[in-house]
Amino acid sequence: MIVVMLPTATEEQTEGVVGQVRERGLQVHISRGERCTVIGVVGNTAEIDPDDLAALPGVDRVVRVMKPYRLAHREARPEGTRVTVRWEGGSLTVGGREIVLAAGPCAVEDEGSLMETARAVGRAGAAMLRGGAFKPRTSPYSFQGLGHEGLLMLARARRETGLPVVTEVMAPEQVAVVATYADMLQIGTRNMFNYPLLRAVGRTRCPVLLKRGMMATIEEWLLAAEYILAGGNPNVILCERGIRTFEGYTRNTLDLSAVPVVKSLSHLPVWVDPSHGTGRAELVIPMARAAIAAGADGLLVEVHGSPVTARSDGSQSLTPEQFGRLVEECRSVAEALGRGLANAGARGVTAREAAS
Amino acid sequence: MIVVMLPTATEEQTEGVVGQVRERGLQVHISRGERCTVIGVVGNTAEIDPDDLAALPGVDRVVRVMKPYRLAHREARPEGTRVTVRWEGGSLTVGGREIVLAAGPCAVEDEGSLMETARAVGRAGAAMLRGGAFKPRTSPYSFQGLGHEGLLMLARARRETGLPVVTEVMAPEQVAVVATYADMLQIGTRNMFNYPLLRAVGRTRCPVLLKRGMMATIEEWLLAAEYILAGGNPNVILCERGIRTFEGYTRNTLDLSAVPVVKSLSHLPVWVDPSHGTGRAELVIPMARAAIAAGADGLLVEVHGSPVTARSDGSQSLTPEQFGRLVEECRSVAEALGRGLANAGARGVTAREAAS
Amino acid sequence: MIVVMLPTATEEQTEGVVGQVRERGLQVHISRGERCTVIGVVGNTAEIDPDDLAALPGVDRVVRVMKPYRLAHREARPEGTRVTVRWEGGSLTVGGREIVLAAGPCAVEDEGSLMETARAVGRAGAAMLRGGAFKPRTSPYSFQGLGHEGLLMLARARRETGLPVVTEVMAPEQVAVVATYADMLQIGTRNMFNYPLLRAVGRTRCPVLLKRGMMATIEEWLLAAEYILAGGNPNVILCERGIRTFEGYTRNTLDLSAVPVVKSLSHLPVWVDPSHGTGRAELVIPMARAAIAAGADGLLVEVHGSPVTARSDGSQSLTPEQFGRLVEECRSVAEALGRGLANAGARGVTAREAAS
Amino acid sequence: MIVVMLPTATEEQTEGVVGQVRERGLQVHISRGERCTVIGVVGNTAEIDPDDLAALPGVDRVVRVMKPYRLAHREARPEGTRVTVRWEGGSLTVGGREIVLAAGPCAVEDEGSLMETARAVGRAGAAMLRGGAFKPRTSPYSFQGLGHEGLLMLARARRETGLPVVTEVMAPEQVAVVATYADMLQIGTRNMFNYPLLRAVGRTRCPVLLKRGMMATIEEWLLAAEYILAGGNPNVILCERGIRTFEGYTRNTLDLSAVPVVKSLSHLPVWVDPSHGTGRAELVIPMARAAIAAGADGLLVEVHGSPVTARSDGSQSLTPEQFGRLVEECRSVAEALGRGLANAGARGVTAREAAS
Repeated sequence: MIVVMLPTATEEQTEGVVGQVRERGLQVHISRGERCTVIGVVGNTAEIDPDDLAALPGVDRVVRVMKPYRLAHREARPEGTRVTVRWEGGSLTVGGREIVLAAGPCAVEDEGSLMETARAVGRAGAAMLRGGAFKPRTSPYSFQGLGHEGLLMLARARRETGLPVVTEVMAPEQVAVVATYADMLQIGTRNMFNYPLLRAVGRTRCPVLLKRGMMATIEEWLLAAEYILAGGNPNVILCERGIRTFEGYTRNTLDLSAVPVVKSLSHLPVWVDPSHGTGRAELVIPMARAAIAAGADGLLVEVHGSPVTARSDGSQSLTPEQFGRLVEECRSVAEALGRGLANAGARGVTAREAAS
Repeated sequence: MIVVMLPTATEEQTEGVVGQVRERGLQVHISRGERCTVIGVVGNTAEIDPDDLAALPGVDRVVRVMKPYRLAHREARPEGTRVTVRWEGGSLTVGGREIVLAAGPCAVEDEGSLMETARAVGRAGAAMLRGGAFKPRTSPYSFQGLGHEGLLMLARARRETGLPVVTEVMAPEQVAVVATYADMLQIGTRNMFNYPLLRAVGRTRCPVLLKRGMMATIEEWLLAAEYILAGGNPNVILCERGIRTFEGYTRNTLDLSAVPVVKSLSHLPVWVDPSHGTGRAELVIPMARAAIAAGADGLLVEVHGSPVTARSDGSQSLTPEQFGRLVEECRSVAEALGRGLANAGARGVTAREAAS
Repeated sequence: MIVVMLPTATEEQTEGVVGQVRERGLQVHISRGERCTVIGVVGNTAEIDPDDLAALPGVDRVVRVMKPYRLAHREARPEGTRVTVRWEGGSLTVGGREIVLAAGPCAVEDEGSLMETARAVGRAGAAMLRGGAFKPRTSPYSFQGLGHEGLLMLARARRETGLPVVTEVMAPEQVAVVATYADMLQIGTRNMFNYPLLRAVGRTRCPVLLKRGMMATIEEWLLAAEYILAGGNPNVILCERGIRTFEGYTRNTLDLSAVPVVKSLSHLPVWVDPSHGTGRAELVIPMARAAIAAGADGLLVEVHGSPVTARSDGSQSLTPEQFGRLVEECRSVAEALGRGLANAGARGVTAREAAS
Repeated sequence: MIVVMLPTATEEQTEGVVGQVRERGLQVHISRGERCTVIGVVGNTAEIDPDDLAALPGVDRVVRVMKPYRLAHREARPEGTRVTVRWEGGSLTVGGREIVLAAGPCAVEDEGSLMETARAVGRAGAAMLRGGAFKPRTSPYSFQGLGHEGLLMLARARRETGLPVVTEVMAPEQVAVVATYADMLQIGTRNMFNYPLLRAVGRTRCPVLLKRGMMATIEEWLLAAEYILAGGNPNVILCERGIRTFEGYTRNTLDLSAVPVVKSLSHLPVWVDPSHGTGRAELVIPMARAAIAAGADGLLVEVHGSPVTARSDGSQSLTPEQFGRLVEECRSVAEALGRGLANAGARGVTAREAAS
């Protein structure tokens, strides 16, 4: 950390800063320039809030040299993290050569349509099933999800198709029950800054899919991951899902450059959600291809057997047929870049057929 | 709600939309133009998600005519809401002629400095004491607040100064305990989309200060208020605290036009937080004046007896002397516009002196 | 300027940076820390683009210590700049104790309605007349202004009312003719980055009202002013007019904190445009009051004798009666803060009456 | 266009709107609902500014049904536009099956390095040479380009390598001279709203590369294209180059979803600039791959023989070797999707070798 003093700073003010730094058990290295004095702070600066020093009299600004996250930092695991999803029917690796496609309805609505969609996405090539039982909705009058009943349906769909399940958890007190049924816990964009929830999932060992807050910088996102990692759960997967900008044609602006950025700053795998990232079904396939080309390790895609009657987010859901096309095009791009698609889908079909 | 069909929409597609609308118990009014057909939807449309209709085949777009919130809507209480804060030492009205200044440290750090700051802001003219016991921090390594112990200190500061207390609550399970000690519950910017938390404070009758999410539209903010109101708690105060934009010189961009906008759309009182809204102490006084001039019903201001050693947000805290100047300047602007400042501070001093 | 080397930087890379810096005639001061080396660059660094150094191998990042503008910097004129507007009928100071209100139609449409509006705003207390002859419009099919004919009408309105005129100039080749008729040249938000135009107005001595680009940082805005100042024209007035954000209820987000920020960073006067800043007539008065309270030296307000038939921006124009109310409320706020309103309006009326 | 009246609108107000609409030669279709009246406007509404109607008394809001652009609209040329670049050495099609890579230095600095870079990018597979002679720079003290001399160097580089040239034009009076030397005129991001400049290039027949304004919505961008098309020049290519958001790690946020969006709304070809779009050399290759996967028809890439001594934008320039890798990876992605790369580079080499 570097503290740049104002040109007008007095010697006493410089001493004041030095004193504050030393009080925190850190060392300083002072260099007095022609125009201003610069104080280098040496030691474990990750625990200092730069704003604290910036408020001292005579300080112009404070520049952080080290990243404020340690466990999420690339250096902590230069070879990259692979997260293993384990369930009755098998296991799946996220962050390796094979790209994982998770697909399913935005919200679980009823068992029949969930089963139908689950079978269809498994057949088309999905490696995981997604579906919301607890739904954060902007309006208190919108459908809020089936809750516990939805979790039971997801568990039955997993048994039926062999596809492991990722579903959202919204509050600390839901973590235990959701972790019982799900194979991966999703933290939604509205909860990326919900620190009690991050701590709660950090106390489990369940894989966590941490969506980027629609308003979060990449650094804040990695610090949210740090909360989970610091709690003892190393199984974190990041998921870019679009940020909020002035452009209103798309629901969000999918920030695909976040994929290579996160890959260089951190060792964690990165997924992309082209459905929420665009909010428009016709953009999902091109952006899915682009996400793979940018280096994503997985995709989260909304698919609905009958999008036009979906109870939430219908306008961004693909039909199973469209999802099948997405799988083929993503496979082509992945193979052109020396990767492939994880093939739990095939397993899923086998499981189901074996059961029949 | 108006559904605009595509120029290429078929008669069957129009019928499909009409069917979906009627299935939800609503009526339609169809007008066939030269270029396209427009379907007016009549009835209680607040419960329909426009995206559901937008996903139907042949639909170009859906335009909402009514606002999606009802209880927060101006029409629900055209005369405006006044929220009464009640505590042992008295009561205070928010939303009337008198403007309420709440001041105090960002985080409660220790009893001595809290008491000192509390007395100083009371003497200078604050009507409420603010201070964080539970602190949402971007980094897991930053000071996270004193928790329950901080609440006890706030309660003692209230007894000592007679100033009622506003403090943040971060998770549903904290609501009961925080409501025991605080006179107003603050929902922070990171939790505006935390619906389980909004529901939890909606089950109390404690006044709630609902900060705008840093990336929330005004409509989403009013819908967050709707969650609390729909839970049965009518005592909601909105607080503009700056939104996130591309401009980095200030910590956030304080959106003061939100004040008159919310006043016209809703009946709820509106406060402004010029400390987080700017992130720089030297901007707090001018923006406090501007907030009053824009029509704010209250201000939330960070004051610290010794900002340079504050453990969080020191760079945006005022000294008690600066806060005294803020009070005087805000009083001048308020009086120029026919309003005044609530004077609990005087009561506070009396209470304290009476106790001594 | 400070160059922070990567922890992995080699000694050769550090030497490389030092060489590049010295080649530009600047000196270095190297401090080797435990974790990384920091190179202080001493001398006139305003002319170095930090990106040039950031691209050198081994560099982590470059931190600018000095501001990149010199002539616009507060230090260049600590007492503050006063810009004098001079015309046949008198002179007016911008940046002093008295606040200047400039009002008039968005676009000049015909002589009759211009005269009527001009007289009305003069009577109500405006000190300047605004009106667009050359209009930048998003669509090529919208009304583009009356051009030269509009300038002639503005000149006649000035003669009639005694109010000096501010109007927009859109291209370098228009500067000469617009400067012949207008008393202040406006650079619109879409042209803040139009450097040939900035250079062209920098070659005149005519006062320039430089609107902030709707997506410009404060630093970029001050650098745009620097282009004009560096051309030899010291008469620059800045005008905040709202920035583009995700919030769509208002046309732009009026960034009032830019007023005190610019006041501290620069010596130039600052105006605010609450009409474009909000895009809604009902918000203009509260935001005008707030702008004065924040410290603005002037306001640019759209007024139209008949807003409902205006050919551009009707929805944000005030009627003359509403403008009269704005003047009264702004006067109250200004006086509460020890300032007042410039009174060219009165002069204007006299001039007109003397002429009759 | 649909005008939604307020629930409180009077019959007179409805009549007022109807009158205004008819006065503009358009027809109305009124439907009176239970809660409010809706007026459909029929005819050529592209020339009405919705704000004009929105300002009428009693109007709640105005909804545009038709897009405000006609010539840029997909319907105007459903089969898609192919722009032909023609120069002495040959011709090149933009918007067909083959993707065009344009590469070269940000700014032309001297003939030696330009030639070297031009040969290197030609050899590596570029189909066009890019390079700035007139440079818009945020600071008046930064290198502003070599101007006319730079154009001469570009022309010589074209002769030497056979690569056609794209370069920026900044002001209407430069158009004639730049069009003499260049094969494609670039309108930079800062000039997308510079309507006199758009009109000036609209009067030529030279292909125009229209970069998206960093603050422009997609609709405003297509309206800027409409200015050029309406001037008579059909040869417009759009170029996404990143928008400004709150995320500061990348210089801009590359909005790749704009590619499929523009493809559906318009018939014009779309390029992507991953260099300015990210501002970081290490992100250029992944985002170039992603752009191709999203459907881009071309890329604009900064390449510099010696990025570390470049006089502008060095930190985002690739070395020729890195560019060679970019070409290979983009070719793989393009072929996976049934497309290929235009091969002017090969021709360029031949031309050069023929000349030797």
